Amino acid sequence: MNKDLNIVPFVSVDNMMKIIGKLGIENMLKGIAEYVEEDFRRWQLFDKTPRVAAHSKEGVIELMPTSDGELYGFKYVNGHPKNMKEGLQTVTAFGVLSEVYTGYPILFTEMTILTALRTAATSVVAAKHLARKDSRCMALIGNGAQSEFQALAFKTLLGIEKLRLYDIDPVASEKFVDNMQSYGFDIVVCDSAREAATGADIITTCTADKLNATILTDDMVPSGVHINAIGGDCPGKTELQKELVLRSKLFVEYPPQTRIEGELQQLDDDYPVNELWQVIRDELAGRENDDEITLFDGVGFATEDFSALRYIRDQISRPGMSATYENLDMIADPDEPRDLFGMVRRSGAMSKAVA
Amino acid sequence: MNKDLNIVPFVSVDNMMKIIGKLGIENMLKGIAEYVEEDFRRWQLFDKTPRVAAHSKEGVIELMPTSDGELYGFKYVNGHPKNMKEGLQTVTAFGVLSEVYTGYPILFTEMTILTALRTAATSVVAAKHLARKDSRCMALIGNGAQSEFQALAFKTLLGIEKLRLYDIDPVASEKFVDNMQSYGFDIVVCDSAREAATGADIITTCTADKLNATILTDDMVPSGVHINAIGGDCPGKTELQKELVLRSKLFVEYPPQTRIEGELQQLDDDYPVNELWQVIRDELAGRENDDEITLFDGVGFATEDFSALRYIRDQISRPGMSATYENLDMIADPDEPRDLFGMVRRSGAMSKAVA
Repeated sequence: MNKDLNIVPFVSVDNMMKIIGKLGIENMLKGIAEYVEEDFRRWQLFDKTPRVAAHSKEGVIELMPTSDGELYGFKYVNGHPKNMKEGLQTVTAFGVLSEVYTGYPILFTEMTILTALRTAATSVVAAKHLARKDSRCMALIGNGAQSEFQALAFKTLLGIEKLRLYDIDPVASEKFVDNMQSYGFDIVVCDSAREAATGADIITTCTADKLNATILTDDMVPSGVHINAIGGDCPGKTELQKELVLRSKLFVEYPPQTRIEGELQQLDDDYPVNELWQVIRDELAGRENDDEITLFDGVGFATEDFSALRYIRDQISRPGMSATYENLDMIADPDEPRDLFGMVRRSGAMSKAVA
Repeated sequence: MNKDLNIVPFVSVDNMMKIIGKLGIENMLKGIAEYVEEDFRRWQLFDKTPRVAAHSKEGVIELMPTSDGELYGFKYVNGHPKNMKEGLQTVTAFGVLSEVYTGYPILFTEMTILTALRTAATSVVAAKHLARKDSRCMALIGNGAQSEFQALAFKTLLGIEKLRLYDIDPVASEKFVDNMQSYGFDIVVCDSAREAATGADIITTCTADKLNATILTDDMVPSGVHINAIGGDCPGKTELQKELVLRSKLFVEYPPQTRIEGELQQLDDDYPVNELWQVIRDELAGRENDDEITLFDGVGFATEDFSALRYIRDQISRPGMSATYENLDMIADPDEPRDLFGMVRRSGAMSKAVA
């Protein structure tokens, strides 16, 4: 019996940055992409449900649970577009991995940074199967918190060298250029989404406004392009013109969730879609020729967080990584399991009471 | 702007015991009962959903979210009856309280002990409205981890003085007697559930087996008794004979959840029930005479955890309580909210990478 089951490893924001420092961000993106792809291959094993969302005027708070029968994971994540103006993150997150057999948590971790990594890794996993093999230039529309992670993942795993940026706020693009200067990209900052899309092999949309926007219209996108649309990720939040969605070959993570949250919101409830896991398993064709427009309507699914949690658990268990987490006293663990009260009593809690 | 929004107060198991020591367990039971009752009064404000359960052969892992529009709370809780034989807790839990306006967490706490307190507090809130006013003797069938908390709550808030215990394992009853010796109860340990029920004004069933059991049969329960049935709390887990349920006036927390998890599983999907919140608001009668059998079919609902989280948040904010929590670096908080990547880069993480 492991005597320390009451202790749960906790990866703080600071320690997540240390892990990135020790492993290298490119290696992490590669590693997480492998775990994400592995779990998409095991898709049918997973207990799947659309995320449980609490919507308010200002934003949304969501829980995203899933399980493969051996491990259980969930993420808490908020989405508050108005936060940015108040100096806060639009998206913050944390997550837990547990053992199904005992129900005990085995990892608690920050997931704001980790979500950025897993979202970028998932986009690349999709693009690997859906973008033209000779893709070298990517348009990045929306240069917020997710954009640099996308760029680096596409460079590391897919060989993207040229970036065409656009953001309604030029300060965001400047920040991007500053952050990416040492990574060897050829970067062009554009004055419009249309200009950014021109000549791109892949177009990534990652804007944050919570509304039905039309960031990308049908006439901006020539044949052969892969669209990586990840900003539309909750009810009432889309980025693409409906005609463009209809013209594309559409790939999604988990249809019941994407129909509520993705670009798919704009189409009929029974509009046919292709599931990414089937493409990854070679059960379904991805891109079939160099002319079609492929669209990954990514909203982010619980299995991707599960993959990221598994990855972090495996990394912090490696030799030399013990300084990358703390131990939290999270689980009450009396010597005799039925004697929870006795544990409290013997702690001296009862006698110290000031009534 | 609060500069420390990235820091979340964390109440460990050890600190929860310190809080009990500082406040006194009876005061905590009273306080939590007040918060539970207050939130039942505000019932219609809450965003309610049955808990999200992941079932496995060995047990269940559940997420229980709710929100009153200002605060959002959720609990993670497992239920693994087989754990006890392996020296582990059947139920362990932790929870988070967040601000709806920002989506940022404001409290992270152990909830194994806190769940025991809130479950006992909720039982008493129900019994206050449903048991006969002259109730002094309670049968406690099932003397596991929850039993002492129930006894103490019923003594503190309802004046229960006599206890009649029964457990299939006499060791559990011995543990109970040992834990409760200084609390002034008149305790009789019985050889059967029938013997324990004899002469009791209130019968509490809190057994742990995950099966449709018949702990209490119709012929064991005379008129006028209040039944506090809290052990049947997941699909396939019940404690009462169906005839007894049909003979009782039935009160529940949140019908959509109780129909799946409670004694109500045994009855038709549209069997009429009384909702506790309406009784608390005086919109519905509780007990109407000294002869009827009242039954609180308690399964535990998310608002009760929300109440307990609110209570702990308020307590640790009081002067002199700062030693009862730690500060966790849970939320990534870059100076410029869109510059998550820059925060990671400037931490030195990128340059330290060993590729």
